[in-house]
Amino acid sequence: MQLIDGKAVAAQIKKEIAEEVGRIQALGGKIPHLAAVLVGHDGGSETYVAAKVKACEEVGFRSSLIRYESDVSEAELLACVASLNADADIDGFIVQLPLPPHINPDRIIEAIDYRKDVDGFHPVNVGRMSIGLPCFLSATPAGIVELLRRYRIPTAGKRCVVLGRSNIVGKPIASLLMQKAYPGDATVTVCHSRSEDISALCREADIIIAALGSPHFLKGDMVKEGVTVIDVGTTRVPDPERKSGFRLTGDVDFDSVAPKAAFITPVPGGVGPMTIVSLLRNTLLAGQKVVYP
Amino acid sequence: MQLIDGKAVAAQIKKEIAEEVGRIQALGGKIPHLAAVLVGHDGGSETYVAAKVKACEEVGFRSSLIRYESDVSEAELLACVASLNADADIDGFIVQLPLPPHINPDRIIEAIDYRKDVDGFHPVNVGRMSIGLPCFLSATPAGIVELLRRYRIPTAGKRCVVLGRSNIVGKPIASLLMQKAYPGDATVTVCHSRSEDISALCREADIIIAALGSPHFLKGDMVKEGVTVIDVGTTRVPDPERKSGFRLTGDVDFDSVAPKAAFITPVPGGVGPMTIVSLLRNTLLAGQKVVYP
Repeated sequence: MQLIDGKAVAAQIKKEIAEEVGRIQALGGKIPHLAAVLVGHDGGSETYVAAKVKACEEVGFRSSLIRYESDVSEAELLACVASLNADADIDGFIVQLPLPPHINPDRIIEAIDYRKDVDGFHPVNVGRMSIGLPCFLSATPAGIVELLRRYRIPTAGKRCVVLGRSNIVGKPIASLLMQKAYPGDATVTVCHSRSEDISALCREADIIIAALGSPHFLKGDMVKEGVTVIDVGTTRVPDPERKSGFRLTGDVDFDSVAPKAAFITPVPGGVGPMTIVSLLRNTLLAGQKVVYP
Repeated sequence: MQLIDGKAVAAQIKKEIAEEVGRIQALGGKIPHLAAVLVGHDGGSETYVAAKVKACEEVGFRSSLIRYESDVSEAELLACVASLNADADIDGFIVQLPLPPHINPDRIIEAIDYRKDVDGFHPVNVGRMSIGLPCFLSATPAGIVELLRRYRIPTAGKRCVVLGRSNIVGKPIASLLMQKAYPGDATVTVCHSRSEDISALCREADIIIAALGSPHFLKGDMVKEGVTVIDVGTTRVPDPERKSGFRLTGDVDFDSVAPKAAFITPVPGGVGPMTIVSLLRNTLLAGQKVVYP
């Protein structure tokens, strides 16, 4: 069993991005600038946004954090998006989800200029990804693909089971893994809450991407020997022994699955760190106008 | 075995659309107007476009056919698209594919105003479909979904195998059948040229959508009893006994598969007629500004 060390890969990619920023700086080019919009004080969102800002600093990007209280109106938020769209100094920006219930997230996302949509959530980027055109890939699926690539895990013709059909993980990773490319060319099955006999499907899989948000869902008796397991789950489970009061728990029962796996990601330290570097990479590409000249 | 009669369903839907056009006319509303752009003289394209124009007439739509010789430049075609985008009288339009090799089809499709993209090929419509937002569904997957609905074929929790991963059939029908809806909620597997052991996967399937373009690929020994089979294949196979010199041949070996199937579409007369009514329906929706107000 080989552990897929997302933390180490993420650190390596950050180093590569920092070097690229150094080159840009040496040539007198524009330093990439990411803006993050944070509404309210949700604990998870605070943590994620702080990590994104910190990652920008680490690689030498500029970053701006724009905060609103949770009673901000949709109109105000749309005005903020419009001003970020128009601001030539901002290369890319994200609006951290979830948003308060009185704000329609689809409306906000669609208002973002897709050329600055470094989260890859805008329909233009989702559609271009599905068709196989250059686009901003959304961060988690891009991070998964990068882990498969860096660990040279074969995917062509392999049976791949994706657990979960969310718009931000399940659907896009399924789309990426079935495309004519590497990583890709896999025979992909998407399972979800309505699927029957998920165990049997998983037992046939060479690669399992678990993105249900259901702690320890995937058990050792549901996988075959030699499987590659990517665990996207990050459920906060209460843990009085931790200072934070919780621990991040994956969708995979690591202790029973790992002994049968050829490759497996831990939680934390697997997909999580990759998500942020995907965002950094998109911001770099946005600054260089590579995807949308 | 019940034959899924696409021709009869299509005729019924055309009748419903014609009635709607009658109501619009009675209220003094605007009659839907579809434009089709045809480049060159490809036999298949000529036939498809003629059928689309004829279908418009049958339901009382207005239609315009714009023709170019195959040496038209990309710039000229883009100018045509721009003028159709700007023409308030045109509710929706299509550019018939394939285009000559010197024209980039992606560039043409992306130039179409997505609010007039009744073929559903624009990245905005592809992306919105994937996310589950209102959009123009592309014609063939929309036709398949409508057949499943009209024949009340259960899909929730069912194993569905999609043969083929094209942008216009395989990927979008997979996306639709996995979404939280009816028809949908299926456990979808997408197979393609790189997939191994397609027979075994097909034998586990409750529903098979065959869209490979490989005549008679799916044989009776590859399906289980009670399967529902939707045949999207329409390969022209030479046939000297026909006046046209060819016959349309599906991806399904009908004679061996039909005896085991609960439901099956014939070729021709299955999915084909539904494709055109999907286009009519999108044009009706475009005229009524239902999808994009």
